[in-house]
Amino acid sequence: MNYRNVLSILGTVLLAEGILLIIPLLISLGTGDDCLIAFSITSLSAVVIGLSLSMFIKKTTDLTAKDGFIICGISWILLSLFGALPFYLSGYIKSYIDAVFETVSGLTTTGASILTDIELLPKSLLFWRSFTHWIGGMGVLVFILAVLPLSQSRAMHLMKAEVPGPKVGKLVSKIRFTAQILYAIYIALTIIEVIFLLIGGMPFFDSVVNSFATAGTGGFAIKNASIAAYDSAFTDGVITVFMILFGINFNIYYLILLGDIKSILKNRELHVYIGIIVLATVLIAFDIYNSYGSVGEAIRYSSFQVASVITTTGFATADFNLWSNFSKTILVTLMFIGSCAGSTGGGIKVSRIMILIRNSIREIKRMIMPRAVMSVKIDGKAVDNDTIAGAHSYLCLYVLIFFASVIVLSIDNFDLTTNFTSVAACFNNIGPGLSMVGPSGNYSAFNVLSKIVLIFDMLAGRLEIFPVLMLFNISAWKK
Amino acid sequence: MNYRNVLSILGTVLLAEGILLIIPLLISLGTGDDCLIAFSITSLSAVVIGLSLSMFIKKTTDLTAKDGFIICGISWILLSLFGALPFYLSGYIKSYIDAVFETVSGLTTTGASILTDIELLPKSLLFWRSFTHWIGGMGVLVFILAVLPLSQSRAMHLMKAEVPGPKVGKLVSKIRFTAQILYAIYIALTIIEVIFLLIGGMPFFDSVVNSFATAGTGGFAIKNASIAAYDSAFTDGVITVFMILFGINFNIYYLILLGDIKSILKNRELHVYIGIIVLATVLIAFDIYNSYGSVGEAIRYSSFQVASVITTTGFATADFNLWSNFSKTILVTLMFIGSCAGSTGGGIKVSRIMILIRNSIREIKRMIMPRAVMSVKIDGKAVDNDTIAGAHSYLCLYVLIFFASVIVLSIDNFDLTTNFTSVAACFNNIGPGLSMVGPSGNYSAFNVLSKIVLIFDMLAGRLEIFPVLMLFNISAWKK
Repeated sequence: MNYRNVLSILGTVLLAEGILLIIPLLISLGTGDDCLIAFSITSLSAVVIGLSLSMFIKKTTDLTAKDGFIICGISWILLSLFGALPFYLSGYIKSYIDAVFETVSGLTTTGASILTDIELLPKSLLFWRSFTHWIGGMGVLVFILAVLPLSQSRAMHLMKAEVPGPKVGKLVSKIRFTAQILYAIYIALTIIEVIFLLIGGMPFFDSVVNSFATAGTGGFAIKNASIAAYDSAFTDGVITVFMILFGINFNIYYLILLGDIKSILKNRELHVYIGIIVLATVLIAFDIYNSYGSVGEAIRYSSFQVASVITTTGFATADFNLWSNFSKTILVTLMFIGSCAGSTGGGIKVSRIMILIRNSIREIKRMIMPRAVMSVKIDGKAVDNDTIAGAHSYLCLYVLIFFASVIVLSIDNFDLTTNFTSVAACFNNIGPGLSMVGPSGNYSAFNVLSKIVLIFDMLAGRLEIFPVLMLFNISAWKK
Repeated sequence: MNYRNVLSILGTVLLAEGILLIIPLLISLGTGDDCLIAFSITSLSAVVIGLSLSMFIKKTTDLTAKDGFIICGISWILLSLFGALPFYLSGYIKSYIDAVFETVSGLTTTGASILTDIELLPKSLLFWRSFTHWIGGMGVLVFILAVLPLSQSRAMHLMKAEVPGPKVGKLVSKIRFTAQILYAIYIALTIIEVIFLLIGGMPFFDSVVNSFATAGTGGFAIKNASIAAYDSAFTDGVITVFMILFGINFNIYYLILLGDIKSILKNRELHVYIGIIVLATVLIAFDIYNSYGSVGEAIRYSSFQVASVITTTGFATADFNLWSNFSKTILVTLMFIGSCAGSTGGGIKVSRIMILIRNSIREIKRMIMPRAVMSVKIDGKAVDNDTIAGAHSYLCLYVLIFFASVIVLSIDNFDLTTNFTSVAACFNNIGPGLSMVGPSGNYSAFNVLSKIVLIFDMLAGRLEIFPVLMLFNISAWKK
């Protein structure tokens, strides 16, 4: 590993966070709340440390794939450790580990909270909390790639490590332009959502932070009742649609800009994703119809919760913990499926599941005709063996980490549903689970060990396991 | 597919079942209970249909791998449909689907019961119920291979389809001898267990049927309180040891007979299996110590339950549904791990999990050194790529079937723990789960659809998915 190289990029990441922290700092200044010192210390130290580290820069040597993973893993940990300081230094979150939990939950776009009364926080902290969703949604490294000129191969390794999905596709040959296009689409969609929410009568501040949480598929709300607090069918509808939109592969929007509608109509992942949303919405609406009285209301609440869970956002307009076990089981299943690759959402990803299923079908066929040559195809293109192998290792590590996490959580001796869905909700970056961590509950009751495990799960979920595991691989640390 | 060939082997399977049914028939005659007619009709019809089908035999053509899977899948369904008749015709189980559930549960060595009061059954039915465990444990096709002279390649395809594990190893070059050796070891171990149970003071009939249930890692008891009814530390100890023994790859016993202790000391699957049992026993004993008062008692109950669950037997000496969530979580994890490949136990199998983990480690290393050639090694031998691919497809299909089953069960609207552990207990061929299907509960309350799903899961679990899925593959049915 080239330490100078790695440190310089980490420095840039910290510098970026220090600069982004100036926005909540200004809000604190404007509203005159008690967080100004906390934001000032954090921002200043991030900028100073970031600047000094990035002086190490050495542009001649290239990054390897290994370095990309390591940088990605450490970046996210550094961002979380610094990002937690405003919560902790201002005294609004008493324990540093809780503050880190909240920040990791924000950056990884999970939305799981240890706060029991969100409305106690001042606007500057609420803004920072929701802003972490927006930063983490598209990714910090992608942001840096969009801003800084880096060599192609160096950029690709960073991109691969941070962007979710079984395979990373470049939109244009230059990665810097790809990153810029992604961020442009991201910003544009976010602004459009803000406008729609304003039309629906939501206050400006609320519209902005709720759009951050939707765009990053995060789910932090600024009301204890989440989106239910606004009690508006229009607002629910707008957020439902935008949650679904942010769960779609961003390449699709680029294709729309290019006018390539044909490719979109052929995109199987998109069809399956929409198909699952429609099916789940209908099944749950049918199931909860009696509690809501009208078809419209049943669809309003079921579509919102389905979109919220499959896109791994985690907003709530209803306490689905009180729904029937059938509806709950469907929601838990959606937790694992997750959104499309290349979106801001989490979960296993629709396309990865499609690859796994199609490969299994191929394996069964191969048992019948051992000599036939068959390939796994998605959108008419053959999926290469490395991608299939990657999807399989991912599933395998996913299952292992899942069970190990549930076992450690069980030491706390909460009920099995709480433990199982806590891990499911954190690992898939959703936020609320069932039972104790349902939409009306929170994660404050867990002990420190459980919180550390869930922090690990959130990071492993957002970065798709490998960058996080790579940090534990001693040989990766060798020069 | 060669239909004549397939039908002839299916005939032989039915014929074998008809002959095996003569034992409970004789017990019925001897005890003078009301099941004589039921056993006579079943036995006679199986023999008649079996004999007529096996007349189709045509020894010239060989079996393909596909035929092996299809024969295996249909054989087990036929055995279950006929094996259920004594329960149904005698009137002791009122619904035929319930009788099939009980028989599939027996043959697949699951041990999940729809009976609410086992002790109401006469001895002949209790014997048949436990005997299905013994028949299904080592396998019907393996039995036929041991008895009938079949060509090598034909025999190998049948063996592969029925024997569990990521890879089937022949003990000796002739498959017929391999099958004979396996059955000889199986019979010898069963007899030794009977002797030990007799020494512990258990009645002869109970010793025999409980040994059947241990040998097949089935778990059907003949008392409502399961093994707790005997309330003997010696008996508990004997059954604990034999459950563990029957969960070991039978190749190990052959190596012992050959005096090849070196190979056994090198067998990693065995070490990991024993290691997991010891670790889980210690953790649970520590956890339940307060409820049992002494270290000895805590270990007695924890080791029994650990052995019962990891070997997928399902006997109970304690209602672990009442234990802490920590202990329950460990037991649920053991449910999935299962026993060693080539044993009579179910689950995912220790060696398959080892292959999956080692391959994941390899994939992580490959990300660091993309050009390095690395192989997955078990016991010093490289695992071939087909075996790794098979293990991955298995895991993938396993997860899919698991979720689909839980969703269908949730229509019944029982709690999530009941649904989750019902599928876990049936798919892994264990028997008892948690909550409603805990050691003191049973499966009678589920609706017909749920029971059919669980029947499918039990068969898919015992035959390791592929033979059962092959039945749904239309192209496999082509001539």
